[in-house]
Amino acid sequence: MKRSLSVLAASIVLSTNAFAASTPKNIIYMIGDGMGPTYTTAYRYYMDNKQTKDVEPTVFDSILVGMAHTYPDDDTIVTDSAAGATALSTGKKSYNGAIAVNSDKKPLKTMLELAKHKGMTTALVATSQINHATPASFAAHNESRRNYDEIANDYIDNKIAGKLPVDLMLGGGTKYFVREDRNLVAEFKASGYTYSDDISNLDKIKSLPALGLFAPVAMPFAIDQHPDRLEKMTDKALSLLDNKNKQGFFVMIEGSQIDWCGHANDIACAMHEMHDFANAIKVAKRYVDHNPDTLLVVTADHSTGGLTLGADGQYRWERDVIKGVSASAEVMTKQMLANDDIEAIWTTATKLPFDNQTKLLLDQAKSQGEKELAQAIKSIISKASFTGWTTSGHTAIDVQVFAYGKGANQFTGSQNNTHIADKLISFIKK
Amino acid sequence: MKRSLSVLAASIVLSTNAFAASTPKNIIYMIGDGMGPTYTTAYRYYMDNKQTKDVEPTVFDSILVGMAHTYPDDDTIVTDSAAGATALSTGKKSYNGAIAVNSDKKPLKTMLELAKHKGMTTALVATSQINHATPASFAAHNESRRNYDEIANDYIDNKIAGKLPVDLMLGGGTKYFVREDRNLVAEFKASGYTYSDDISNLDKIKSLPALGLFAPVAMPFAIDQHPDRLEKMTDKALSLLDNKNKQGFFVMIEGSQIDWCGHANDIACAMHEMHDFANAIKVAKRYVDHNPDTLLVVTADHSTGGLTLGADGQYRWERDVIKGVSASAEVMTKQMLANDDIEAIWTTATKLPFDNQTKLLLDQAKSQGEKELAQAIKSIISKASFTGWTTSGHTAIDVQVFAYGKGANQFTGSQNNTHIADKLISFIKK
Ligand SMILES: [Zn+2]
Ligand SMILES: [Zn+2]
Repeated sequence: MKRSLSVLAASIVLSTNAFAASTPKNIIYMIGDGMGPTYTTAYRYYMDNKQTKDVEPTVFDSILVGMAHTYPDDDTIVTDSAAGATALSTGKKSYNGAIAVNSDKKPLKTMLELAKHKGMTTALVATSQINHATPASFAAHNESRRNYDEIANDYIDNKIAGKLPVDLMLGGGTKYFVREDRNLVAEFKASGYTYSDDISNLDKIKSLPALGLFAPVAMPFAIDQHPDRLEKMTDKALSLLDNKNKQGFFVMIEGSQIDWCGHANDIACAMHEMHDFANAIKVAKRYVDHNPDTLLVVTADHSTGGLTLGADGQYRWERDVIKGVSASAEVMTKQMLANDDIEAIWTTATKLPFDNQTKLLLDQAKSQGEKELAQAIKSIISKASFTGWTTSGHTAIDVQVFAYGKGANQFTGSQNNTHIADKLISFIKK
Repeated sequence: MKRSLSVLAASIVLSTNAFAASTPKNIIYMIGDGMGPTYTTAYRYYMDNKQTKDVEPTVFDSILVGMAHTYPDDDTIVTDSAAGATALSTGKKSYNGAIAVNSDKKPLKTMLELAKHKGMTTALVATSQINHATPASFAAHNESRRNYDEIANDYIDNKIAGKLPVDLMLGGGTKYFVREDRNLVAEFKASGYTYSDDISNLDKIKSLPALGLFAPVAMPFAIDQHPDRLEKMTDKALSLLDNKNKQGFFVMIEGSQIDWCGHANDIACAMHEMHDFANAIKVAKRYVDHNPDTLLVVTADHSTGGLTLGADGQYRWERDVIKGVSASAEVMTKQMLANDDIEAIWTTATKLPFDNQTKLLLDQAKSQGEKELAQAIKSIISKASFTGWTTSGHTAIDVQVFAYGKGANQFTGSQNNTHIADKLISFIKK
């Protein structure tokens, strides 16, 4: 809070009369997919040091400046990630499923393309496949987010002034890049890109341009493997981008799987994704501290799952239950299907008792199938922690806007999500 | 958004070096009980003019400056309205149920008491009984919010420098003020207060001090009767307070029943309460426009019901269904229990079809009893509108902070709810 106020005070003084002076050179744009305000609230209580009386603020609390309205240009007010990312990348709302195209399926210029056109270095980082909806909406154009192959093709075919659009990509997706019909990895290499598929050794990437694909599709959930993969990729991206180009850089970094844990209604999964995303933001914030000509903007495309902290009439949310869970429901389910010792798996992966009711519920669900077993596992954890969910899909609640560094004062208050893109684009165009 | 930015820009310039210069003379403090961020989002889509492409911003959008953390000093992170109001009135967190007392049940000085002590004029306005938890925590002290009679007594017994604490009270509660053991209305009259029990003719109150009690307990829901009662009481209060005291005034105005519709999981009820509260805020904002030495701060004590916009896997929230509902589920239930023509009541009070399934559900629920029938009515409306709920209680999501006028810049960013009170108290103490 204090940090945020002083930054605001320092920068707003100059804002109206000396706008150009507060135009950032570098832009770090971070999107927590599905990260509605319940997620940042939950994360604070999840992280609370119970040895102290107060609940410690998080990195989100240190840079909150406003909120954003997420509705798409569609016959619903609930957006998907494609329309959300299109609004956040182009300043134009479109239909659910649209990848940087308008309602007539015509391409919309993205801020990454504008940055590249200006001569800035560009980068995309995600824990999903790098051709998933959010990163895709920055460097590709497609009438449907489902056309994964076409989107991956765009990353090499969508030339900006004769150049490839993105200088650095880190994420998952080898399945879409190495295909029978086309080997994009080979094409990227032929275009001078360093390629790596080893997340454990990011040092292998020493220069730009570069492509890192660390999983066939998405990278595993943070709760299951490499809990700090986004933090590490963020650190790597910023060190590769740092001070290489006097025109500056634009990087979009997505906490992709907050959304996926939300779709799954898996609260422990979501908190681990939030932790990796928060630590990635800390890395970015430190970069801004050392490079005050940089702007960091963090937001979300929408919220997911209808998450609530408190349920069933009880005035409680038990983060200790969630802290005790050390595997995603997806992984627990696979383990229980492969192994008859459900008790051992349950008591290892959760700190919850394996009482008669739990045994009965899990045994019964296992006999019904994978989906039912996963549902039972999550239901027991949600009930024990008083975590509420209302949907396997998205919801329309406004999301938060966080900003730090040069130009941060331009994102205060309640705004349409397109306003965020409009402001960033105006900075890039300066 | 533009308004909010320019206000911020104008005032923050002066904030650090010239703090005293931005100390407001008058404080209008408005609390939407239970008004979590889903409620303000829902209200925007509920109010949307569908003839235009964009979704119009609301009065909330024009003054959003930050968010607040609502956890109490208790063995849970989910607050009740008493602990919430105590934090918002005293700057100190306490246990759930506490009315301006700390965890040792010792009285905590409230900002209304400090204002009275300074010689400011003081006022409380609510649509609940005026001795309900939120207003109570500004002018009474009690170990339990349930001690309604003792709290009402405090409004006359809790003398500040020999004077009654509150110069103007508007709300419900005759049941607690005219009792067998004590007639507080008579005592207020004897102390020089004008008394009125007629909400339809607020003009009868022509001067301060004054007491208006317009219902035995709470006033009816806005959806059922007097949809603009908070707006009118706000207008009346501000005209009574205006320019009467060179020390200025402090008024707390509560949208009390947003919370109650939330507890009931009655979305149409909640939207009507939001509308009355929003219109009351508009009145207050206009007052600030005409009296720039006034500060308006609006926030909530917590969110209620686990409301979500979108449910059951569908990317939809159908505000037209909600717009079609013209009675609270409580009133519809009473009507259906008193009258066998369920179809007539249903089709009058909702614009939803009375199809076979609806008939079956309502008939069956009616035979089970009042609670079941109310539940069935709300469940049909929630399902048809894709409104999600997770609890009959409160949730822990951060709430929003809105501010406008002199000193508004002091409430930006993410803050503890006690910070809001601390700042207001520092203004009062100047
Ligand atoms: Zn999603
Ligand atoms: Zn309540």
